Amino acid sequence: MVAPLANIKVVDLTRILSGPFCTMLLGDMGADVVKIEGPDDGDPIRQLGTIVNGFSTYFASFNRNKRSITLDLRSTAGKEVLSELIQKADVLVENFRPGVLDAMGLTAERLESLNPRLIVASINGYGSSGPYSQRPAFDFIAQAMSGFMSLNGGPNDGPTRSGVPITDLVAGLYSAYGIVNALRVRDLTGRGQRIEAAMVDSIMSMFAWYASDHLATGNPPVRSGNRHPIAAPYGMFAASDGGIAVAPSTEAVLDKFLAEIGLSNLRDDPRFASNALRMKHRAELDVIINERVATDTQANWISRLNRAGVPCGVVQELKEAFTDPQTLHQEMVISVEHPGHGAIRMLGFPVKLSDTPCCVRLPAPEHGAHNAEIAEDWQLACRDLIVSAMPKITA
Amino acid sequence: MVAPLANIKVVDLTRILSGPFCTMLLGDMGADVVKIEGPDDGDPIRQLGTIVNGFSTYFASFNRNKRSITLDLRSTAGKEVLSELIQKADVLVENFRPGVLDAMGLTAERLESLNPRLIVASINGYGSSGPYSQRPAFDFIAQAMSGFMSLNGGPNDGPTRSGVPITDLVAGLYSAYGIVNALRVRDLTGRGQRIEAAMVDSIMSMFAWYASDHLATGNPPVRSGNRHPIAAPYGMFAASDGGIAVAPSTEAVLDKFLAEIGLSNLRDDPRFASNALRMKHRAELDVIINERVATDTQANWISRLNRAGVPCGVVQELKEAFTDPQTLHQEMVISVEHPGHGAIRMLGFPVKLSDTPCCVRLPAPEHGAHNAEIAEDWQLACRDLIVSAMPKITA
Repeated sequence: MVAPLANIKVVDLTRILSGPFCTMLLGDMGADVVKIEGPDDGDPIRQLGTIVNGFSTYFASFNRNKRSITLDLRSTAGKEVLSELIQKADVLVENFRPGVLDAMGLTAERLESLNPRLIVASINGYGSSGPYSQRPAFDFIAQAMSGFMSLNGGPNDGPTRSGVPITDLVAGLYSAYGIVNALRVRDLTGRGQRIEAAMVDSIMSMFAWYASDHLATGNPPVRSGNRHPIAAPYGMFAASDGGIAVAPSTEAVLDKFLAEIGLSNLRDDPRFASNALRMKHRAELDVIINERVATDTQANWISRLNRAGVPCGVVQELKEAFTDPQTLHQEMVISVEHPGHGAIRMLGFPVKLSDTPCCVRLPAPEHGAHNAEIAEDWQLACRDLIVSAMPKITA
Repeated sequence: MVAPLANIKVVDLTRILSGPFCTMLLGDMGADVVKIEGPDDGDPIRQLGTIVNGFSTYFASFNRNKRSITLDLRSTAGKEVLSELIQKADVLVENFRPGVLDAMGLTAERLESLNPRLIVASINGYGSSGPYSQRPAFDFIAQAMSGFMSLNGGPNDGPTRSGVPITDLVAGLYSAYGIVNALRVRDLTGRGQRIEAAMVDSIMSMFAWYASDHLATGNPPVRSGNRHPIAAPYGMFAASDGGIAVAPSTEAVLDKFLAEIGLSNLRDDPRFASNALRMKHRAELDVIINERVATDTQANWISRLNRAGVPCGVVQELKEAFTDPQTLHQEMVISVEHPGHGAIRMLGFPVKLSDTPCCVRLPAPEHGAHNAEIAEDWQLACRDLIVSAMPKITA
């Protein structure tokens, strides 16, 4: 059994979220990820989120399967070590603002001369060129500019962002996909290349029918909150002890839904004879359905409707979602021992490989913990330079 | 120049969205994707979304770079053709409800005996085993059950779904990532394996600090709408001609923001001396900032603030986002000629590879257009069976 990215060496210059998520995805697949951090505070995320026993749980969750080396990249010594790492690496990942890598002396030409087999991946807000390339990137702004926010929220609310920084994460995942594809090209040609994912582009690619309908018609999309923009009944209904989410997405599923709630007769009601009519009389329809749904509990409806083939669930809070039997079955909440800081719980692996499953080989690293180990493993000729480049070794 | 997935043959049994998105991502990287459709209506998406000149623009947007073959998989002939395709393929992708592939006779053992090098990828709602595996999958329900909805919306709104079916798309992308990783393992070992991504797991993996904070503390996350849950100022402010989104994410960026709007003196105001105090006095702070922001236009603030290093943008509607100069520069809206139906506009490629860029080799296929072509290209021995398996050849 061999991990997909076994023997792939990654020089990780990323910080905060989108880049570290990308390199964690590579590490989860077995890559040897060397996180380069400044000798002072390192990745700012080390200081953010809930700190438990002196360690950021947020940092822990996005930096497993990595090792940390401290280099002062403003110093000649630090640059020399980085150059040697780059010569020995397969992949370089960065999420600086476009141009920063160049300013560090790592121009395309320099990287090419150091290592023509290197894959250089960049994650940014808008792209590495073009009118907005120099704007600082931030998820909330990417959600706003991309059009994503304009599609979220009810018709009476303003556009609403997703609470989670979805554009960071989707761009990180696209980058990981691009990197593994570029590795495949290199297997065939022996040559590296540059890959890039922008946060705005990444989330745009996920607009589904909103994009295709708008591009075909020019019509503005309808912001419909938790209701379906073009199908009824659909949305939240009130069971006796709380809401249920029901999505009868086709006529066939609608038949099953109406049968299970004892309202098959609505099929004969002229007000509800077609989807267009049901959209028109949605308020009346919802009242009738809610009367029936109120006669049983959330749990019973979820069981009954799903058994009948009707997609149904509840809006779970994180507490419920993370203790849900299916979540546990999928091992989506894992506990990782961090020596000196205890066990830290985090999310598991969303993509399951039967023969080479992702696993936690390493907890998130202490700041600069692997200076000596990496010098040894990567057989760095300039290892003597490392010492002066890392005044704050903690391990 | 060789595409990353050149020479990779994909048997595509997927339909609707999550699976077709996955196989389109593979096709965009150069894979030979053969979309298997029933001889009757084919992928239901062919009938949905805006139809232009007899072709669904929604279908077009998620099925480029594929060819279509019609097989009646309930017939012996259809099953025989599928078996031969599987023998000659590298990857099989499906998004049926768990168990359907088995019921079709394609058990793990059967697939293994047909082709031990095959990578079998499954995309589903909850996972292929566990208490909810038999529930029908649907994006809205996955958004609800995963906890995603509970993080979206303002403190006074209920939990809010994302308008776009984000769990379908993220699961599709994770699957594509898993497949390319599994191809890498196969390059090393000669063996295929099964990969799987569930919609609920996929979106959960993107909860960032909400997940790590909750798992560390047990505290319920704050649903804060367009405001930042733990930083102020942050959010929407009112320029003279409309709102601007501003994200001063660190103290250093906040300094830049206050300087640019001429309010550096607020740093000396004891009400705003720390982030905690600013959160407490957020309403007052927002009033003061809005007074200044109202003195200039959206466009000017966007230009001024970004130049000063403060992430800033506007909430763009799709019309604005898709005609934005940066979007055009990134070639994120492309036009693809569909013979017989004219040009259809769709979103471009979010991950850019410098040497082997994604491209549209093929428009989305007519239903069953490639029966003969695939029989020839894949050198199918049982090509005679195809004729009887596809009564509705259109090409």
